[in-house]
Amino acid sequence: MSFSFTYSTPDPASKARIGHLKTPHGVLETPAFIFCATKATVKSLPMDLVKKAGTQIILSNTYHLMIQPGAETVRALGGLHKMMAWDGPMFTDSGGFQIFSLGHGSVANEIKGKRMEKRQRSMLKITEEGALFKSYLDGSMHLLTPERSIAIQHALGADLIVCFDECTPFHVEKQYTAASMERSHRWEYRSLEAFKALETDQQALYGIVQGGVYPDLRQESADFVNNHDFFAHAIGGSLGASKSQMYDVVDFTMSKLSPDRPVHLLGIGGIQDIFHGVKQGIDTFDCVHPTRLARHGGALVRGHTKEHLNLRNGHYAKDPEPIEADCPCFTCQNHSRGYLHHLIKAKELLAATLITQHNITFMNRLMAAIRQAIQGGTLDAEEKKWVFHHP
Amino acid sequence: MSFSFTYSTPDPASKARIGHLKTPHGVLETPAFIFCATKATVKSLPMDLVKKAGTQIILSNTYHLMIQPGAETVRALGGLHKMMAWDGPMFTDSGGFQIFSLGHGSVANEIKGKRMEKRQRSMLKITEEGALFKSYLDGSMHLLTPERSIAIQHALGADLIVCFDECTPFHVEKQYTAASMERSHRWEYRSLEAFKALETDQQALYGIVQGGVYPDLRQESADFVNNHDFFAHAIGGSLGASKSQMYDVVDFTMSKLSPDRPVHLLGIGGIQDIFHGVKQGIDTFDCVHPTRLARHGGALVRGHTKEHLNLRNGHYAKDPEPIEADCPCFTCQNHSRGYLHHLIKAKELLAATLITQHNITFMNRLMAAIRQAIQGGTLDAEEKKWVFHHP
Repeated sequence: MSFSFTYSTPDPASKARIGHLKTPHGVLETPAFIFCATKATVKSLPMDLVKKAGTQIILSNTYHLMIQPGAETVRALGGLHKMMAWDGPMFTDSGGFQIFSLGHGSVANEIKGKRMEKRQRSMLKITEEGALFKSYLDGSMHLLTPERSIAIQHALGADLIVCFDECTPFHVEKQYTAASMERSHRWEYRSLEAFKALETDQQALYGIVQGGVYPDLRQESADFVNNHDFFAHAIGGSLGASKSQMYDVVDFTMSKLSPDRPVHLLGIGGIQDIFHGVKQGIDTFDCVHPTRLARHGGALVRGHTKEHLNLRNGHYAKDPEPIEADCPCFTCQNHSRGYLHHLIKAKELLAATLITQHNITFMNRLMAAIRQAIQGGTLDAEEKKWVFHHP
Repeated sequence: MSFSFTYSTPDPASKARIGHLKTPHGVLETPAFIFCATKATVKSLPMDLVKKAGTQIILSNTYHLMIQPGAETVRALGGLHKMMAWDGPMFTDSGGFQIFSLGHGSVANEIKGKRMEKRQRSMLKITEEGALFKSYLDGSMHLLTPERSIAIQHALGADLIVCFDECTPFHVEKQYTAASMERSHRWEYRSLEAFKALETDQQALYGIVQGGVYPDLRQESADFVNNHDFFAHAIGGSLGASKSQMYDVVDFTMSKLSPDRPVHLLGIGGIQDIFHGVKQGIDTFDCVHPTRLARHGGALVRGHTKEHLNLRNGHYAKDPEPIEADCPCFTCQNHSRGYLHHLIKAKELLAATLITQHNITFMNRLMAAIRQAIQGGTLDAEEKKWVFHHP
């Protein structure tokens, strides 16, 4: 069998689990963090360095790749694995998140109370068939449907692929969330049918749980995915406007999901949020945060009074210390904070590469420590070492 | 002895020579190409990859580093070697070239007949003392003198350092070139005195031959450097407006220089020009071309009808071949031209990193092939394999 998932919950008092998710490109040890390789590159980092940083799995975005270079070009170049020179497990999303987040306005803008102006919206129309949107590159029109998303993800060739759904925004009424969820279920069903028709054993499909912040809808959506033949589940949609609301949604949803399938929490990458998710039984996480932060000069650190060092700060100009003295990454073994500050100020591309290498190493060390702590029953103690403590 | 230079000329019919230039950071096999690490980074490439590409030696620029982050900051961070994590031989220039090329207008602009407008000029005043210029960053005023250039280069800590001189522009009269050369000799003498006062055995000093395109001046300048206690010589100043004029200047100057010292040809990196220089006995070359070309999507190739592939070209979009099938670099071993084209179109930083890695590997393979061909007496045959043949 190309795919399988086995897990154990070593601490009977906790839902935290360690697992092995087998794919045609190797076994993923969970809990794991999935790094974004949006446009078929972990931004600024050659693939040998991505691997050296301890990375198990990466994620590319169907939305970006269908526009550029196009799924047929990726197929002509041998598929995503070969094109990117990545021989490990890989994930693609369905394209839905980007269409709808660019269409409705970003989550951050939602929280700030901003809505995108009509003219900025790239999403033109949602119908039962699918979503019609404008390319951010050239304004050309594209229709993404469940069938097309699966066909594109098949051409891209990642191991783990995802049903097409609507990423429902936070600011809408419950009535819209419910209607959107029901359409997403119909789209997920069509995704599953299209996937089955491929008769492939080289890819496995995730169903997505929608329902926004409403327990009754989340329950309904969990029932839907549990009752269909998905390999795994992802928790999507709006998780609310605050950390505590997000935790409530995650906790409730996890309590309703069938425990025998892997669960992915979409778009969450804060360290505290990862610990929280792990304790609810979440197996995988993804977020642009560690790599985007690096490109803005932010280096993740643990045991500090802050979550990251802002290496742009002139404070670091003559600092001969590495980001973290005990970090085994190339950056920390070879370069000072002062040098990284210089590269940032000089607008040198190498700054992004070196800090990205550190942040990825950091996240992979975090997940390895979490797996070990679950095994040893010391997850709470481990959390205290990693999570930023407000003074 | 920290520094030494030994060489042999295996082919009695040629002045081409293979040498060993010993430095405190290892032995440089010559002929060698020196890669630009202008602002203390080989742009876009982590240092382990610079080394993996077969690089023997890199060059940083005093002008850029004195402005940002400043020589004292580099010293505080342990010197250039430690800061950049480069443990091999290193070269710094004197700062003169940038001050004067930015001051007078670039060589390319000269050839195109353009002069820089007064207000764009950053070089404010040349006096016997030195050169007063404005920082390109913040407009602050800096005075660079022979003594200050040596002091800065000492703080930076490269193995091979260079006398401060005026890089005389091409468009001036012979009279200016002569007066400028004479002042450069006085500055070189002061550089040498300042260098001797350091009493260091960790750095060695290059004298520079000036004199523009005028044989009598080049003769006088060669006599000057031959008669002073420099470790090595560099050929600087204007080499003319055409390839044939440049070759004449190089040939004439080389015939006048003492053969027992290493000779560096400043700013030359075209493949044909390197073969020409090697045949005149030049030992080292430097040029931004291979790395700058890479950042613009140009990949060096041999045995083609062009000197490089322009990977921006849509022609390569679905090309599954590597840049060069027989190249051992990470890029060629792992990625297709189609993928590199995609990265360029998507404005991904990784494009620069991967193509730079190839171009550096290419130049290092070229220089290794040249050294082997000199040994075997097959330099002309080797040249035919590398130099672009006009149809």
